[in-house]
Amino acid sequence: MLELGSGMAQGDDDDVPLILTWDEDANSGLLSDGALERVDENGTGDCDGVGDASVPKPVPVHSRAQISNRQSWEINYQEAAIYLQEGENNDKFFTHPRNPQALNAYLFAHNHLFYLMELLTGVLLMMLSLSEAPAVPSLRLDVYVHATLELLALVMVAFELCMKLRWLGFHTFIRHKRTMVKTSVLLIQFIEAIVILVRQTSHLRVTRALRPIFLVDCRYCGAVRRNLRQIFQSLPPFIDILLLLFFFMVIFAILGFCLFSPNSNDPYFNTLENSIVSLFVLLTTANFPDVMMPAYSRNRWSCVFFIIYLSIELYFIMNLLLAVVFDTFNGVEKMKFKSLLLHKRSAIDHAFHLLVTRQRPDGISLKQFDGLMRFYKPRMCARDRFLTYKALNQSDTPALCLEDFYKFYEVIGLTWKARQSREHWFDDFSHTMFLIFKGIYILVKSKAFQYAMYVVVAVNGIWILVETNMLNGGLRSGTVARSYIVFLTIYGVEMLLKITGLGPMAYFSSGWNLFDFLVTVIAFLGLIATAFNMEPFYFIVILRLLQLLRLFKIKQRFRNVLDTMFELFPRMASLGLTLIIFYYSFAIVGMEFFADVIYPNCCNTSTVADAYRQVNITIGNDTVLQDGYYYLNNFNNILSSFVTLFELTVVNNWYITMEGVTSQTSHWSRLYFMTFYIVTMVVMTIIVAFILDAFVFRMNYSRKNRETLDNSEDEKGIVFEAEVACAEIRQTLELYKQILPGTNLSSLQGLCVAIEQTADSVVFLGRRARTKSDLSMKMYEEEIQEWYEEFSRISFSQSEQTLQD
Amino acid sequence: MLELGSGMAQGDDDDVPLILTWDEDANSGLLSDGALERVDENGTGDCDGVGDASVPKPVPVHSRAQISNRQSWEINYQEAAIYLQEGENNDKFFTHPRNPQALNAYLFAHNHLFYLMELLTGVLLMMLSLSEAPAVPSLRLDVYVHATLELLALVMVAFELCMKLRWLGFHTFIRHKRTMVKTSVLLIQFIEAIVILVRQTSHLRVTRALRPIFLVDCRYCGAVRRNLRQIFQSLPPFIDILLLLFFFMVIFAILGFCLFSPNSNDPYFNTLENSIVSLFVLLTTANFPDVMMPAYSRNRWSCVFFIIYLSIELYFIMNLLLAVVFDTFNGVEKMKFKSLLLHKRSAIDHAFHLLVTRQRPDGISLKQFDGLMRFYKPRMCARDRFLTYKALNQSDTPALCLEDFYKFYEVIGLTWKARQSREHWFDDFSHTMFLIFKGIYILVKSKAFQYAMYVVVAVNGIWILVETNMLNGGLRSGTVARSYIVFLTIYGVEMLLKITGLGPMAYFSSGWNLFDFLVTVIAFLGLIATAFNMEPFYFIVILRLLQLLRLFKIKQRFRNVLDTMFELFPRMASLGLTLIIFYYSFAIVGMEFFADVIYPNCCNTSTVADAYRQVNITIGNDTVLQDGYYYLNNFNNILSSFVTLFELTVVNNWYITMEGVTSQTSHWSRLYFMTFYIVTMVVMTIIVAFILDAFVFRMNYSRKNRETLDNSEDEKGIVFEAEVACAEIRQTLELYKQILPGTNLSSLQGLCVAIEQTADSVVFLGRRARTKSDLSMKMYEEEIQEWYEEFSRISFSQSEQTLQD
Repeated sequence: MLELGSGMAQGDDDDVPLILTWDEDANSGLLSDGALERVDENGTGDCDGVGDASVPKPVPVHSRAQISNRQSWEINYQEAAIYLQEGENNDKFFTHPRNPQALNAYLFAHNHLFYLMELLTGVLLMMLSLSEAPAVPSLRLDVYVHATLELLALVMVAFELCMKLRWLGFHTFIRHKRTMVKTSVLLIQFIEAIVILVRQTSHLRVTRALRPIFLVDCRYCGAVRRNLRQIFQSLPPFIDILLLLFFFMVIFAILGFCLFSPNSNDPYFNTLENSIVSLFVLLTTANFPDVMMPAYSRNRWSCVFFIIYLSIELYFIMNLLLAVVFDTFNGVEKMKFKSLLLHKRSAIDHAFHLLVTRQRPDGISLKQFDGLMRFYKPRMCARDRFLTYKALNQSDTPALCLEDFYKFYEVIGLTWKARQSREHWFDDFSHTMFLIFKGIYILVKSKAFQYAMYVVVAVNGIWILVETNMLNGGLRSGTVARSYIVFLTIYGVEMLLKITGLGPMAYFSSGWNLFDFLVTVIAFLGLIATAFNMEPFYFIVILRLLQLLRLFKIKQRFRNVLDTMFELFPRMASLGLTLIIFYYSFAIVGMEFFADVIYPNCCNTSTVADAYRQVNITIGNDTVLQDGYYYLNNFNNILSSFVTLFELTVVNNWYITMEGVTSQTSHWSRLYFMTFYIVTMVVMTIIVAFILDAFVFRMNYSRKNRETLDNSEDEKGIVFEAEVACAEIRQTLELYKQILPGTNLSSLQGLCVAIEQTADSVVFLGRRARTKSDLSMKMYEEEIQEWYEEFSRISFSQSEQTLQD
Repeated sequence: MLELGSGMAQGDDDDVPLILTWDEDANSGLLSDGALERVDENGTGDCDGVGDASVPKPVPVHSRAQISNRQSWEINYQEAAIYLQEGENNDKFFTHPRNPQALNAYLFAHNHLFYLMELLTGVLLMMLSLSEAPAVPSLRLDVYVHATLELLALVMVAFELCMKLRWLGFHTFIRHKRTMVKTSVLLIQFIEAIVILVRQTSHLRVTRALRPIFLVDCRYCGAVRRNLRQIFQSLPPFIDILLLLFFFMVIFAILGFCLFSPNSNDPYFNTLENSIVSLFVLLTTANFPDVMMPAYSRNRWSCVFFIIYLSIELYFIMNLLLAVVFDTFNGVEKMKFKSLLLHKRSAIDHAFHLLVTRQRPDGISLKQFDGLMRFYKPRMCARDRFLTYKALNQSDTPALCLEDFYKFYEVIGLTWKARQSREHWFDDFSHTMFLIFKGIYILVKSKAFQYAMYVVVAVNGIWILVETNMLNGGLRSGTVARSYIVFLTIYGVEMLLKITGLGPMAYFSSGWNLFDFLVTVIAFLGLIATAFNMEPFYFIVILRLLQLLRLFKIKQRFRNVLDTMFELFPRMASLGLTLIIFYYSFAIVGMEFFADVIYPNCCNTSTVADAYRQVNITIGNDTVLQDGYYYLNNFNNILSSFVTLFELTVVNNWYITMEGVTSQTSHWSRLYFMTFYIVTMVVMTIIVAFILDAFVFRMNYSRKNRETLDNSEDEKGIVFEAEVACAEIRQTLELYKQILPGTNLSSLQGLCVAIEQTADSVVFLGRRARTKSDLSMKMYEEEIQEWYEEFSRISFSQSEQTLQD
């Protein structure tokens, strides 16, 4: 977001910054860099694996020997903004730019355009596998076309890496593990792309499985990186339990082989390898009870073997896995939150000391804050900058002390709105109108109205169910049931009543109302389309069903569940993306080895031949196609591979795909499927642990919150207040005119006029949605204080030490 | 355990009990019954559902107007022992016996003989279903035989109930829900048994499904009752989420019906009912990907429908279920622990005030404690009674104060042993022998020896694996590989070395060593049996594999896992028993409705006909039996039913059994299978939540413990110390001789002689295994103090109130 040249400051000649970064004593202040690096060591931040080495201290961005006071303020603003951004993005401070060239590269590499380029390059590289052989038929491209495209994308990646090298410096660059991995993968891919262009044909390219690295490394995929890190952190205990699992599996396999191999009807235990594979598949329950049946039919007591095996492996050790991952996950989440919090705090420390003046070293004035914000959020209007300052300044002193400034990240994302002094939106209307609207308002707010609507929705649901059940078999597309029009009309009337009663602003501020509105309006549009015979049939079916979702507003628990679902959505999406990245790598490997080995009637020699059979059977006079369909689960292109891998993730009947492929290739193919199973098991266990953790956390939170706060506040999200007096605005306006003559101050002027018309002062409310971080802040309230104290103790002792040195 | 007539006391004439229960002021003391009942209200104890009603105050057990001081002490001892037993068993105090007849009935109904009778009656009633039609073939009994047996068992139950009625009194009896349910079930069963005897044929007896009630109600099944209560407590939130699940299922079923029913090749969505059933089965993943295939083969994008459905239902809401149950479970566990703890505390309060004398109202002397113990644990020897008293008496005053007495339940289960002053068991041997043994000791204790053994075990494991792999196909029973004899010899030598080095006592005190010893000795016995051609072949295979388990001693985490497994075993067993009780009820219902409907080639009209087919196919000249085997999963007798239900629990392919039965009966049968699925899902989720909770708890515990205590102490279990001087013993001996002339004091006398020979005083160590309750005590350390304070505050205010009344 940082952009250069957003208005140079003027009138900064009076104040002198406390820290001029080239001063020798700048590093020996309260804020010693040593202390900050100490925190980074615990960090689970972006650039881990480098933090513990001896980190070079940040050196001044500019060599500022001959620049004026005003210019040095501008530089300080910019550097403070960079620090705050690093705090927000969890970038470690040792990647802080250290000279003007580095600063330029840093600024070039840190804006949304560049990020977008990174993202698009990554996506393009991954999308290429749609067109490379074996390609999706409709997207097939010639070899030279896709190889050229790949080369182009790789050049882009190389360019991005060059910018990074310029910004980080060679020394830091080669010690940044992730970047080095990326560089080497880039080199390999580059060579391979050239080889393909030269030979004009694709060779076995398993290295394509590494392509997701380019996507994962881009700025917008930070959440995916964090997930991957969390997965790797959970691995060591996971592997221990996995060993336990395999140990018992082998023991039971030997036992099973000894017990059941004399039975010639039992294909599952006739060799030791089959025995192990059978028990591996049994662990996923996919071949149960078939695997037991031959033994069971010979001796009924043989079921004891399988019951004991499943009890130990499936019901005990697999749950143990979940317990271990859940436990690790819990700890990791807390540590991550702690290190992020302390990192942000130290970023604020850094920024604060760059913004205070020599004259007043314990507070930031509005002028300096405004200067910072012009770099940190150039698009923010003057009014919001001022209001943010007011919201931060809780002690009501003329300057912002450090304690106030620590709230920076909580306040920065707020959207500001003047508090409505009116109770209803129609208070200004004439008396008759007021009474009418008031009546509607009371009606809409009444419990009876709400429950009547629930009844309507419930009746609608039952109606749909009955109706669908009635038209068994014959579905006539195009005709819309009259009942639907009736229900839709009711919903429409309800919507209009609510909008008129509550007022458009209040109505649309609720997510549920917005949902109702959209579904109803789209349904009406669909109805109109039907009238013109445009047949958006399935569309209407889905909309009708969506309307039923409203029923879940009835119960507090459902609302909680759905709210939590929405809160968790970003995190869930990033977990899904992580899974897709694993899928991608496995899909590439699968395509390289198993493309086109599966086709109808391919596996007649295997034990799962039936599932792949496609034959015409003549029964009487009819010829019926008997179809096992499993040949559709193949690795013939990347989309099919993804579907096949999803089926393998769901686990049921996955051994049919495995055995089919194995019968067409070698029995080493099983390794691929088993590895995939274990990898998805890890990821899925993490997902389960995450959902468990999030919900248990959320439930604990709402239990804790119920004790201290009323629930109404809870539902509004995060709210900050700022009271603004007319005189204050005028003063600020003057100040702005003085320091930023040419800029657009209309937002502030408009505010000034508005206040003068109505009252002396106006209270503004800044709102934003609640994030997981806010929840954590509340949950760990007490511990946070301890962390802060510990942190400042370390900082203090470090600075003491620095002074003594 | 309480037994009458364990020696009447003498010499009690000097002290007068503080509380003579017939005194009017006895109820107005510090220990008001009102306060105690208050605690019971929160209780999740055994007799819940009655506690909140106005409870009649306990009245004196005996009418003690004309009895001597000594006799009144005996009565006090007995009543205190009853209170302590009630505290231990979590029986509520309102079931306290209130008159001599009740006391007699109470004592009759509270000993192991009676409990065993209860248990046997319950088991017998359940076992009857093995012999009732449809019976297990080899156990079939004539109708009049099993009906007579049943009647006999029911008479026993009736007798037990009569005893309970006598002890509780009619008023309490009819307000005790569990007992009332039991009585009404008993009546129904009684009538039915008589009807069967009269008609000489069994009728449709679904009420047999209620038989587990008799088992659950018996004293030894308290853990099962607690599990059931926990399951019912977790139900409300569970049902909420289940509704959410079904709501989405119905929505998707309607959508799926609309989307896929035009495809005539798709049998899964051709009617709305099929659609719902298919999606229900899909929720268990049992029909995936088959259910998707017809639609997928027509349009590749239809997989999106299934992916979204599975993501929402299986991966999100099902995990939500686990989260909700886990959260509830967590809270319930803590509440249960709290109420148990406070119940025990108030039991101790009760007992304490019955044991102190008027002369010294704040302490229990040894004489009184001994009197109590003679009733509480009649089998305990005099030495242990004395040592227990010493262990409790931590303040070293002549009498036991209340604070000391609160530790009663922690100390009572200890087994006492004199601390070994010798470092090694061979210290007394001659010098040469000592050196030899010392050498062995050092060898056995060395890391090198341990790791060498691990290597041997690992080699043994690999050897077995390779060997088993080599003899692919041909398994020659009776011949034992020479390698086995070699390894067994190594194990034997190791065992002998360890026994000689550590001494037999130290060796056998470790569970792992005991395990080694047993496995090795049994293996030798097996080997000898083989030499005599007795062919215990599988037996030896299992033993060989068991020896590999030792490898898990290497890593701390494995040890932790296995230790936790052993600690959890009783609880797991009770959960397993709970599951079996559900199985039993479902098996009875299944047998009544579905017995003999499944047989080979039974379901040729259904979609799962293949699985039930048993045909001879001629390929070339050979006739091969093609067998679907699923006809083996039937409800023909109770054992088959159990196996079938286990298969349904594992879920995979459960729809084959469901569809098979459905095709032979009506489609209402699906209700049975779906209900069973939901019930096992509840139980299984609880089991998973339990394992999760237990392990997370245990890991937190060991993390917490590592901070405060060293680990070595942790592994020993619970240890108490008591130092005993020679003079003290002599004094005690005199006391005992005085108050209990005729009894056996050999244990104390022996101790006295032993101490005189060696030293002035001996330290005794009392040990017991650590239980979940000990872990909880440590985990909730701080909260426990709060609970106690709250509890005593309530008691105090209650007693204040009583005084004012």
